Amino acid sequence: MNSNQSSRRSFITKVALGLAAVSIPEIVSAAIPEASSSKIGLKKNNVILFQGDSITDAGRNRKTLDANNQNGLGGGYAFLAASELLLKNPEKDLQIFNRGVGGNKVYQLADSWDKDALDLKPDVLSILVGVNDYWHTLSFGYKATIDTYRKDYRALLLRTKDQLPDVELIMGEPFAIIGTAVTEAWFPAFNEYRVVARELANEFDAAFVPYQSVFDKALKVAPGSYWCPDGVHPSVAGAALMAEAWLKTVK
Amino acid sequence: MNSNQSSRRSFITKVALGLAAVSIPEIVSAAIPEASSSKIGLKKNNVILFQGDSITDAGRNRKTLDANNQNGLGGGYAFLAASELLLKNPEKDLQIFNRGVGGNKVYQLADSWDKDALDLKPDVLSILVGVNDYWHTLSFGYKATIDTYRKDYRALLLRTKDQLPDVELIMGEPFAIIGTAVTEAWFPAFNEYRVVARELANEFDAAFVPYQSVFDKALKVAPGSYWCPDGVHPSVAGAALMAEAWLKTVK
Repeated sequence: MNSNQSSRRSFITKVALGLAAVSIPEIVSAAIPEASSSKIGLKKNNVILFQGDSITDAGRNRKTLDANNQNGLGGGYAFLAASELLLKNPEKDLQIFNRGVGGNKVYQLADSWDKDALDLKPDVLSILVGVNDYWHTLSFGYKATIDTYRKDYRALLLRTKDQLPDVELIMGEPFAIIGTAVTEAWFPAFNEYRVVARELANEFDAAFVPYQSVFDKALKVAPGSYWCPDGVHPSVAGAALMAEAWLKTVK
Repeated sequence: MNSNQSSRRSFITKVALGLAAVSIPEIVSAAIPEASSSKIGLKKNNVILFQGDSITDAGRNRKTLDANNQNGLGGGYAFLAASELLLKNPEKDLQIFNRGVGGNKVYQLADSWDKDALDLKPDVLSILVGVNDYWHTLSFGYKATIDTYRKDYRALLLRTKDQLPDVELIMGEPFAIIGTAVTEAWFPAFNEYRVVARELANEFDAAFVPYQSVFDKALKVAPGSYWCPDGVHPSVAGAALMAEAWLKTVK
């Protein structure tokens, strides 16, 4: 039994026994049992780019375009993960950018992909997109289906690999939990977006961050209002949880 | 030899040998050898307040006054420390606030201390103030000396202990490193502010975070431009370094 299996068994036992003292590292390890086998090795001068929607954007100043700048990195998981990478790798001179844009669906990422992704020539490209691809079909008149998401996302990834054949990809699982903006009516339809993101991550050999699994396990120790009040946008605690999970993909 | 002495000796040996692979946890442990003996135990529903100047403020939205809100916590060490506390203590329902104000000296903290500190009834109060008390005597016409700082700061702490006799205090060491705003001319005069902050921390039984020592050690692995470009305001990496040091004071 390796340490991930061990921590997973410990987690399951504690949850089954109703013990409160399940630690967050245990939660993240239990949700990401495969983490140790798929880590991306960061190299000196690597450019790391976070791309996605409002969860990635997290209030960044869109006029602040330089690397490693708090205003430019926003106040979410991307900033928290970046701060840990910069703290722990001072000798690597990492250049970390955030170009997430609130409200974006895959086709909108594609519209500005040259300027906001390819031109930055990232060595590591992290993408989290999908919740709006579903949500906006419910509430914002977006005419699309799960097939639109799959087709648009695959095209974006093909274009990326064509332009940046050596890029290391990190793809996040779209997630939603019951909250002020998310009802039971989202499920099971929303789950298809999670499945497609995971399938595409496999197809494109990306590291996959199972945010839904992580949030689902975190809900056993504190309610959704603690981690993600509206069900889509994480709280500070939820952003920290995401960063902890994201950081499992790199070394 | 306890683990802190061990990590400190390891750090000193590696630095002496010119080895690059001194890890940041080693740096922080080497700078804070006494950390394990002085931790503040956080309890359920504790209110934690960060107070100070621009380093604490870090661009927070001053209209966002609710707890645990990223906009209200800003983008510096306070937010980073808060995110870690909220992640690791989901069962404690901590309420974390930031009321730091850029440019503040001790007497300015005192001016708004009722509203921005005492009225919040913090269980844990973290204060970092002092760099402006020196800097503004050089560049902004502030007429004061080290005795002003000592007298003003002691009065603020006495007032705090009078109103909140059970408050747990965390006091940060003012720090400055050579940068675009800090020259050799600051030293040794600036060092007196560090000494006074430490003396007052001892007098008031506060946990002390030796930020200057932490930055001085971090400078052995990356330049000041990496940690704190102007010498006063930390970068993202520097803010993460401060948060790591701050977190050593609590458990």
